[in-house]
Amino acid sequence: MIIVMKERAGEAQIAAVQGKIESCGLKAYVSRGESKTVIGMIGDVSRADPGAFRMLPGVESVMPIGKPYKRASMAFKGERTVVSIPPVRGGDRGLEIGGSGVVVMAGPCAVESREMLLSLGAYLKEAGARMLRGGAFKPRTSPYSFQGLGVEGLKYLAEQRSVVGLPIVTEVMDARDVEMFSEFVDLIQVGARNMQNFALLKALGQCKKPVMLKRGLANTLEELLMSAEYVLNAGNEQVILCERGIRTFEKFTRNTLDLSAVPVLKRESHLPVVVDPSHGVGHWDLVAPMALAAVAAGADGLIVEVHPEPAQAVSDGGQSLTPRHFKEMMEGVEKVARAVGRSLA
Amino acid sequence: MIIVMKERAGEAQIAAVQGKIESCGLKAYVSRGESKTVIGMIGDVSRADPGAFRMLPGVESVMPIGKPYKRASMAFKGERTVVSIPPVRGGDRGLEIGGSGVVVMAGPCAVESREMLLSLGAYLKEAGARMLRGGAFKPRTSPYSFQGLGVEGLKYLAEQRSVVGLPIVTEVMDARDVEMFSEFVDLIQVGARNMQNFALLKALGQCKKPVMLKRGLANTLEELLMSAEYVLNAGNEQVILCERGIRTFEKFTRNTLDLSAVPVLKRESHLPVVVDPSHGVGHWDLVAPMALAAVAAGADGLIVEVHPEPAQAVSDGGQSLTPRHFKEMMEGVEKVARAVGRSLA
Amino acid sequence: MIIVMKERAGEAQIAAVQGKIESCGLKAYVSRGESKTVIGMIGDVSRADPGAFRMLPGVESVMPIGKPYKRASMAFKGERTVVSIPPVRGGDRGLEIGGSGVVVMAGPCAVESREMLLSLGAYLKEAGARMLRGGAFKPRTSPYSFQGLGVEGLKYLAEQRSVVGLPIVTEVMDARDVEMFSEFVDLIQVGARNMQNFALLKALGQCKKPVMLKRGLANTLEELLMSAEYVLNAGNEQVILCERGIRTFEKFTRNTLDLSAVPVLKRESHLPVVVDPSHGVGHWDLVAPMALAAVAAGADGLIVEVHPEPAQAVSDGGQSLTPRHFKEMMEGVEKVARAVGRSLA
Amino acid sequence: MIIVMKERAGEAQIAAVQGKIESCGLKAYVSRGESKTVIGMIGDVSRADPGAFRMLPGVESVMPIGKPYKRASMAFKGERTVVSIPPVRGGDRGLEIGGSGVVVMAGPCAVESREMLLSLGAYLKEAGARMLRGGAFKPRTSPYSFQGLGVEGLKYLAEQRSVVGLPIVTEVMDARDVEMFSEFVDLIQVGARNMQNFALLKALGQCKKPVMLKRGLANTLEELLMSAEYVLNAGNEQVILCERGIRTFEKFTRNTLDLSAVPVLKRESHLPVVVDPSHGVGHWDLVAPMALAAVAAGADGLIVEVHPEPAQAVSDGGQSLTPRHFKEMMEGVEKVARAVGRSLA
Repeated sequence: MIIVMKERAGEAQIAAVQGKIESCGLKAYVSRGESKTVIGMIGDVSRADPGAFRMLPGVESVMPIGKPYKRASMAFKGERTVVSIPPVRGGDRGLEIGGSGVVVMAGPCAVESREMLLSLGAYLKEAGARMLRGGAFKPRTSPYSFQGLGVEGLKYLAEQRSVVGLPIVTEVMDARDVEMFSEFVDLIQVGARNMQNFALLKALGQCKKPVMLKRGLANTLEELLMSAEYVLNAGNEQVILCERGIRTFEKFTRNTLDLSAVPVLKRESHLPVVVDPSHGVGHWDLVAPMALAAVAAGADGLIVEVHPEPAQAVSDGGQSLTPRHFKEMMEGVEKVARAVGRSLA
Repeated sequence: MIIVMKERAGEAQIAAVQGKIESCGLKAYVSRGESKTVIGMIGDVSRADPGAFRMLPGVESVMPIGKPYKRASMAFKGERTVVSIPPVRGGDRGLEIGGSGVVVMAGPCAVESREMLLSLGAYLKEAGARMLRGGAFKPRTSPYSFQGLGVEGLKYLAEQRSVVGLPIVTEVMDARDVEMFSEFVDLIQVGARNMQNFALLKALGQCKKPVMLKRGLANTLEELLMSAEYVLNAGNEQVILCERGIRTFEKFTRNTLDLSAVPVLKRESHLPVVVDPSHGVGHWDLVAPMALAAVAAGADGLIVEVHPEPAQAVSDGGQSLTPRHFKEMMEGVEKVARAVGRSLA
Repeated sequence: MIIVMKERAGEAQIAAVQGKIESCGLKAYVSRGESKTVIGMIGDVSRADPGAFRMLPGVESVMPIGKPYKRASMAFKGERTVVSIPPVRGGDRGLEIGGSGVVVMAGPCAVESREMLLSLGAYLKEAGARMLRGGAFKPRTSPYSFQGLGVEGLKYLAEQRSVVGLPIVTEVMDARDVEMFSEFVDLIQVGARNMQNFALLKALGQCKKPVMLKRGLANTLEELLMSAEYVLNAGNEQVILCERGIRTFEKFTRNTLDLSAVPVLKRESHLPVVVDPSHGVGHWDLVAPMALAAVAAGADGLIVEVHPEPAQAVSDGGQSLTPRHFKEMMEGVEKVARAVGRSLA
Repeated sequence: MIIVMKERAGEAQIAAVQGKIESCGLKAYVSRGESKTVIGMIGDVSRADPGAFRMLPGVESVMPIGKPYKRASMAFKGERTVVSIPPVRGGDRGLEIGGSGVVVMAGPCAVESREMLLSLGAYLKEAGARMLRGGAFKPRTSPYSFQGLGVEGLKYLAEQRSVVGLPIVTEVMDARDVEMFSEFVDLIQVGARNMQNFALLKALGQCKKPVMLKRGLANTLEELLMSAEYVLNAGNEQVILCERGIRTFEKFTRNTLDLSAVPVLKRESHLPVVVDPSHGVGHWDLVAPMALAAVAAGADGLIVEVHPEPAQAVSDGGQSLTPRHFKEMMEGVEKVARAVGRSLA
């Protein structure tokens, strides 16, 4: 943190800033320019609240230096995290997210029935998907909308896993459910609306399963990394970041998929980055081009909504691919992955 | 919901849309224009997912009609909700939020110490505040920032109430804490980051204490009303809405305080509306003008950060008023309240 | 500007930054902390492009210090600018914008006919308006929408001025028209879409009439001040700033009226600040509360759309007040102005 | 346009809406549902202002149907527009934008010197660029920043064209300069800040050179298409659309590059779509991944900033590629283009 003093700041004001820095257990260094004095500090800067310094007399502005995230930062770890999903059945391969292979997760927005999961899962696996997505607990804007099948949905997902063999990723909404999710689920998703539900993040930091954090609708990438920091700091190092679109003024798309998140997060952090083009754009016909673009930008994985009959889906039908469109998309994804030196996982 | 068919949509496509409408338990009515056919539906439209209709062949666009909120709507109740805070000590008056008086809630961002609360509370009460705010559980972007005093903080707040006499408003972050909050707190606040934490909203719907919902950083007013709907629908009718700024590109202010939220929410809903200018702007010197503007726009209350020594605050010092500035602001608030035909509660 | 070097930056890299600073005609000062070196510069910093420094090896970040605006800044002038509109007819008073009186400008979105202007102008004057607004050249999203009456519209406005006596404010869209506007118009408005039309701003800087700059839909307040700087720097000191709403995700309102712009601009700059609640919210029933809020926040003036028959307006009918609603609004505006120590101009 | 009446709207109110529709030269059709009446209209709906209908008594809401753009729409033309840039020297090939080849435009942010353009142009051509970009007239937020070399810059660009052979694309800022640009420039660019400078768009509609329209920072894709409509409607059919990032709250990037613009614009319109990753992200190290993503999403071209010594650039150095990085990027672009069935032009 650097504190810039006003042009006419007096010695007593400068001394007061120094004093406050030292009272935070930090060391101050003062740099006197011709017109303005600039004061820096050394030590664990997280102890000093920028707002408090802004209040001190004679202070013009306060600027953060350095990154607020530690464990999530590339500098901290020095090598990329690869999240491992163990084989779900004897004889299956395990799965790595964040390695050279691009991992595709696919499935319906919401778990609707046991039969649908089984048949769709088999199709998706054949087409190249490596994980099955599907919501059992659904965050819905309206209390009158379908809220998901709940525990029953988790059981169907688990049955699919043992029958078809795709590990499952699904969203947890309540810290009280984390233990149960740890039993049933291979990758626990935190939805966009809960990205800063810190009680939930702390609970997930104490479980043993990998966690996929979706970026909130109005959250900066720095805040996404800070939410990852909550999980990492609580002891769980298996964290995946997911870009799924931010809220802007544009109306053609449901959200604005910010693909620059991919190279930014890969530069700043060692954590794997997955892209959700379905929520990002909200219209099925835009999903495939954005999936290809995500892979070209360097994404480690995709999470895509597929429904056998989108027009009959209980939610998000308009953004779901049909199985056939998914298959076509996968051909493109494979080609683009190879063009950027990767392959399908 | 209205479904507009493409110009060349055939009879079979029109019939399929009708069929889907009827399968949702609704009645369809078809209006054939010269170029396009438009299909409406009658009944409980919340059963029909717009996305699913967008997928049907021949459909050009799907437009919602009417409001998705019911219990929160002005039309549903027909009269304004007045939230009552019972007297906290024998001999005190109770407090009404949403009546003719403008209610001012004030206090530090975070509860820091017992002594500070007691002396600040007494000052604020004298200056016209009717409730004490103060965070015991703090949502912080960083896991390394001060997370609040927790239960101890709640106890200090409660002690202030019995000694000084100001009822208290403070934020709950975890559904597991709702029962404890119901004991200690007069008005339970849901912070912006948890506005769509539906597990928390459902838990609050089952408690007996009034709830103040803060608008999320990227949430529309319609979504705020839908979150209120969660609480109302679960059985708690004592809900207050709070505008506290949305996230935009502007950099001079921490957020953009959307004061048009006040007349919009008062038109759409019967629920009281409170404004938080401190978080809305993030700089203490902008708080008073925005507080006055909020009252001029019709707000039923204000929630404002005040700290005896902002430069020593553990959080949000930069946006806290000093007690003296608070007193000055209150003089202006009273004058503007009278100018719009109201008074201080 | 302050340049923060990476932790491992070497002496040669530090020297290269110093060299580049000096090559811009500035003086460098180097401050060596324990972990990082910070380099400042003294002189006319506008000569140094931050982006260029970001490219230099060893540089971690580059932070601007101080304000990029000069002539628009409070510090530069030290006293408030009062823009004078001379009396338009013998015997009339002149008008001051930026003094203690709140100036209300009102009129139709577009000039539609001579008769309407004359009768509406008389009504508005009687109700307390001090300037007549009305578009002769209309910026329309669609080339197929009504583009305004053009020069004919300017003539009707001017006729109203000589008959009714209200000075006129209207929008210029083309640098080629500035000379003509200087003849007909008392206050030349730059619309939101042209806030960064620098060719237009330069032309206006050379004319003798006051200019009102509307904030662009996605422009920061700093950028608004920089656009004012273009006009001021070209020699025209009669500049008024106007907040009229920014574009966000909210849907109930046409734009999000950012009233915190008022205290921010009054703090940063000496220029008068006017608020346009009509474009800010886009619905007539929200205009009056936001007009009152603007005055409470400290606005020096309001610009409001009024139409004798909004349902017949050629544009923006939905946000126009009827004359009767305008009169009611003016009563509230006067009361709030007095509550904040001002009056109607 | 569809007009939904309130539940209790009476016959007289319905008749008044019908009357207003007919007074616009349109035909009304009334559809009476059980609870609400819905009124549609047939004919040239651009004559009817939605805002005016919203004002009529008994009207609940007004919803547009169909697209406001005509000449820019895919439906209007039925086949893709290919913009042709004629060969600039005897013996050279001409250039097509919007065909199967991906066209890369590259060069410095601003034209700085004759020598630099000549040597950089030769390098870029060798590396696969097909057009040279470079600003002669620069839109700068600050009047104190370098404003470009002006006409001299245009001459250097033209000299490069005759010596090196790359056709040139550069920005026009003033309608008075359109004629001069028509002489010197192969593709005239309208910058983001002027996307709704309608005077400029109309002037460009009357010139004979192709025009590239950049999306404004806060403009929807529909508004971009409407600005294209201004040029098309004035008689110039050679229009290219350019996505260059929108303004959001994210801070790691200068803007948020909205790559979903590519498939949306290709679906809605027949016009070619180019992406500018340099302005979109604002940091050179993010340019290449986003360029690859743009091609994967279906872009017809890229426009990229390259500078021989970014640290010495007079503007935008931080987002400029070095020539070597450009060459590396081109290898990736070519591979991704092939992966999606295209090639480098």
